[in-house]
Amino acid sequence: MTTSQSLIRTQGVTAPAGFRAAGIAAGIKASGAPDLALVFNEGPDHAAAGVFTRNKVKAAPVLWTQQVMTTRRLRAVVLNSGGANACTGPGGFQDTHATAEAVAAALSTWGTETGAIEVAVCSTGLIGDRLPMDKVLTGVKAVVQEMAGGLSGGKEAAQAIMTTDTVPKQVALHHPQNWTVGGMAKGAGMLAPSLATMLCVITTDAVADGDALDRALRNASARTFDRLDVDGSCSTNDTVLLLASGASEVAPSQEELDAAVLAVCDDLCAQLQADAEGVTKRIAITVTGALSEDDAVTAARVIARDSLVKTALFGSDPNWGRVLAAVGMAPVELEPGRISVSFNGSPVCVDGAGTPDAREVDLSGAEIEVVVDLGVGSGAATIRTTDLSHAYVEENSAYSS
Amino acid sequence: MTTSQSLIRTQGVTAPAGFRAAGIAAGIKASGAPDLALVFNEGPDHAAAGVFTRNKVKAAPVLWTQQVMTTRRLRAVVLNSGGANACTGPGGFQDTHATAEAVAAALSTWGTETGAIEVAVCSTGLIGDRLPMDKVLTGVKAVVQEMAGGLSGGKEAAQAIMTTDTVPKQVALHHPQNWTVGGMAKGAGMLAPSLATMLCVITTDAVADGDALDRALRNASARTFDRLDVDGSCSTNDTVLLLASGASEVAPSQEELDAAVLAVCDDLCAQLQADAEGVTKRIAITVTGALSEDDAVTAARVIARDSLVKTALFGSDPNWGRVLAAVGMAPVELEPGRISVSFNGSPVCVDGAGTPDAREVDLSGAEIEVVVDLGVGSGAATIRTTDLSHAYVEENSAYSS
Repeated sequence: MTTSQSLIRTQGVTAPAGFRAAGIAAGIKASGAPDLALVFNEGPDHAAAGVFTRNKVKAAPVLWTQQVMTTRRLRAVVLNSGGANACTGPGGFQDTHATAEAVAAALSTWGTETGAIEVAVCSTGLIGDRLPMDKVLTGVKAVVQEMAGGLSGGKEAAQAIMTTDTVPKQVALHHPQNWTVGGMAKGAGMLAPSLATMLCVITTDAVADGDALDRALRNASARTFDRLDVDGSCSTNDTVLLLASGASEVAPSQEELDAAVLAVCDDLCAQLQADAEGVTKRIAITVTGALSEDDAVTAARVIARDSLVKTALFGSDPNWGRVLAAVGMAPVELEPGRISVSFNGSPVCVDGAGTPDAREVDLSGAEIEVVVDLGVGSGAATIRTTDLSHAYVEENSAYSS
Repeated sequence: MTTSQSLIRTQGVTAPAGFRAAGIAAGIKASGAPDLALVFNEGPDHAAAGVFTRNKVKAAPVLWTQQVMTTRRLRAVVLNSGGANACTGPGGFQDTHATAEAVAAALSTWGTETGAIEVAVCSTGLIGDRLPMDKVLTGVKAVVQEMAGGLSGGKEAAQAIMTTDTVPKQVALHHPQNWTVGGMAKGAGMLAPSLATMLCVITTDAVADGDALDRALRNASARTFDRLDVDGSCSTNDTVLLLASGASEVAPSQEELDAAVLAVCDDLCAQLQADAEGVTKRIAITVTGALSEDDAVTAARVIARDSLVKTALFGSDPNWGRVLAAVGMAPVELEPGRISVSFNGSPVCVDGAGTPDAREVDLSGAEIEVVVDLGVGSGAATIRTTDLSHAYVEENSAYSS
């Protein structure tokens, strides 16, 4: 990050002025854990932007929120865990619509005239089941009441969206010019691939219109969430929203806004990686010397998704041959005899052949840095990933049952 | 299979007339297990065809054998386990060349004038290390001696190419018109993706030229090895060779040859799947109703590679939502609301939404059939895969060390 602002992980979406939030247990989860969250923008502005899963099978709340976001305007985001409301047919879409209507009605009753078209809906949990709408609708009234009680609540909201997460993820960045960006996220995935649904709400009290927010959010997502790849799987529900209240009355430049949103997304990304399902190693795969940055991303992603690379790193095994075998399948320009690889800074392969000490590199720590130099250009990029561990298999072989 | 010929798994590459084979322990493997195999074509014909890994990072023996196969002619195939000779630089290529020269010299001494250009070389094992050439070259002389002793040896050859395989894989098909196809294979992968290197040698005493063999082999590989996908990883060494001796003096039609080679490849494929690393479930993913057969293959492969689908099936969990999430990322034409899914014949999702009993389907058996109907065309294809188990993680996190 080139910004010098400090990041504070004890604050989240309510750090910027003009935002309230709350999280409650509405009974959607059988466990009784918190499962319903609300983020509310008091204004004066209500500009917003969003990015969504690229999966062609999109959950009902994604289809709804994509429609809402064509207006580039949001008053509130309601989020539930305990059910993805994906692959639920027309009835599931009606459930999402009814949820947005209920939030709008409750906010209107509380004193802020709101339409359903100003309410984004996000859901996460098991695919395929309808939500218990009696509990969702009762919960919506309760969470609006709760939110009305005060300006805090950011952390409760971050807790209420957790599924297999073990800790809530939030962060705030206070800019020296007196404006702030805050965010919360859940899941351990991203916009293209994802382990579980990745939901993220970012708030700011900066003065910025929808176009500026859209640019800042797309720029940040492409460099952060899009480059976190835990298992190559992609959720039906991934959603990242950015809301601006304008309450600081400060209008940062586009570059300042871009940098601050990038810093918040980058930090949330690191938190998601560190809490990924079954993670025992935090791995950064950097490809350099590619023909283009796109080629570098593609090559790094192919390596990051390779089960043989991921199991080797779980075993702290410097089996660099698997890295070459993986990158050899990437649809990018490369010459096998020019590829060099290092693990944690130690060269293990130079010009396509192993170094004498390659098998001795120590990978026993929790952080592993793999650098692959293709030697054909100057494009570079890093993908964050995790290892493929027994805990990953355990957690994911017993999820719906 | 439309052929009525019987498949016999107690026979392999020496079942057809005109072939000898042997397998010995040459000391390449530290364990002392068999590690060097030879398949020799006594003629009168020496036509041959081959298909190879699509990985851009190709092992030295693949580069050598691709050159050899431009002649469509082979007298012998020498195969070693205990080292892949991949990513070993120019020195590794010289080792392969020296091995072919040594085989040619030993066969010439034994009485069959042979040139190195008539000898294919296949290697499998850890990527990145040079082979112990003193042991390889001494072993070559010994394996030619051993082969000279008799017409059997097919099973010894199949054993000598094993790496993480737990059983040798071989099969023979005896055609009613008195010609035979035999084959052996190792690994649990295929030509595009592969778990470990897939090596396969198929022999026939049919009279067939190189073009006919090439057509039969490409047709069979595309429908069998190319549709076995254990973990999406791809080896640097995959090789499938087909050799014809003409010793039966029977010249089958192209259709008869195609069918027999397909039957042998299909059976070897089933054996590879059943012995894949860490397998606890043998899974067939069939996609129907695709716009084309290519789309069906692509969609089935994306599902077969999805870690969340594979861990769910390891857990006998009918979590069909993960199948929809996976297929939604496939680069094929589809409409989410028209997709239907069944597990072992029980519908779990119809027109994109779950059925009432979807969570009750019993997947506790070792065979699981997943059928995904995209409902947009008539293309269909099946990919064979396996589950993602603790045993897979265990085996692959401790391979090179």
